[in-house]
Amino acid sequence: MFELILQNVSKHIQLTDEEKEYFISILKPKKLRRRQYLAQAGEPCRHECFITKGCLRQYYVDDNGSERILAFAIEDYWMSDMHALITGEGALTNIDALEDSELVLIEKKAFEELLIKVPRFERFFRIILQRAFVSHQRRIIENISLQADERYKRFLERHPALEQRLPQKQIAAYLGITAESLSRIRRQRLEGTKKT
Amino acid sequence: MFELILQNVSKHIQLTDEEKEYFISILKPKKLRRRQYLAQAGEPCRHECFITKGCLRQYYVDDNGSERILAFAIEDYWMSDMHALITGEGALTNIDALEDSELVLIEKKAFEELLIKVPRFERFFRIILQRAFVSHQRRIIENISLQADERYKRFLERHPALEQRLPQKQIAAYLGITAESLSRIRRQRLEGTKKT
Repeated sequence: MFELILQNVSKHIQLTDEEKEYFISILKPKKLRRRQYLAQAGEPCRHECFITKGCLRQYYVDDNGSERILAFAIEDYWMSDMHALITGEGALTNIDALEDSELVLIEKKAFEELLIKVPRFERFFRIILQRAFVSHQRRIIENISLQADERYKRFLERHPALEQRLPQKQIAAYLGITAESLSRIRRQRLEGTKKT
Repeated sequence: MFELILQNVSKHIQLTDEEKEYFISILKPKKLRRRQYLAQAGEPCRHECFITKGCLRQYYVDDNGSERILAFAIEDYWMSDMHALITGEGALTNIDALEDSELVLIEKKAFEELLIKVPRFERFFRIILQRAFVSHQRRIIENISLQADERYKRFLERHPALEQRLPQKQIAAYLGITAESLSRIRRQRLEGTKKT
């Protein structure tokens, strides 16, 4: 049950058997049905979350009531509302499941104790955060500087598995375009036509 | 010369005298004149950077040749091209000085050794990164969901010192609007008129 998260951790730090045992002891498995929330904007969110199966999305509802997606996360990824987790304030974002999902949660208090008892986890989360930070910077830059068809192309290159797995509507919301625009872009790609 | 960076570090971790001495030994002071680059998109960027005086901006040039600003950083802030620093690839962003600035650099190799020799710095940079990450998430959400006048209001609340210090053109580029739009928003604020 915890094999995937242990593998994920071992990509960046090595744990002794004793540390592994302690780490496992603080993990809480949780199942989320499709459309169920892990976090809701304005509400507290008191756990780090690792995905062992399924797919989550982190999104925001804009003034027009449209859902704008910040990120998707599938198995082997971490996702939480970092603002709520570190400040104790309400979440900035909504996180819900796009598929029936299986998660591993670490409660805030257990998370803080983990960092103190096994400081190597500071290294682990520093590395995870560096990558998340760069991915967000890249996202901001691409939203600023690329046309929708190029953003879609980059999305496919970076997340080849997601195209088949996600409803087109969700991909369009991630790209910040309408489902109709995405259909047109996909059609043009299939026809080998390049939009200029 | 290194007082401010030591104070900054002491906000999150405590160092012994010996650790302080070692930390200071890897710091490289650097002066940057206004308009001088610290990093250029596509070029390597091999240092973490702390600002002791002055103001830097991190920006990207879009397809139309316009500068789009990701972040400003003044004294007591950290700024680097994280992508270049962790991957060794070319920087995603440009970083230059808006004022004559004084910096403290930590070279990539010294930075990595520091994290190994004084692992408490993992904690320090994990915390710094969490905040930077949340600030980027907030930026994405506000760009998506708020009108320009509301984005300007939030900018002023968060960075009250910057309004007087930065050219209006730079603030407009940060908000993603033209200098003319920013003038209009400022005029409306002064007149107490609320744009709806």
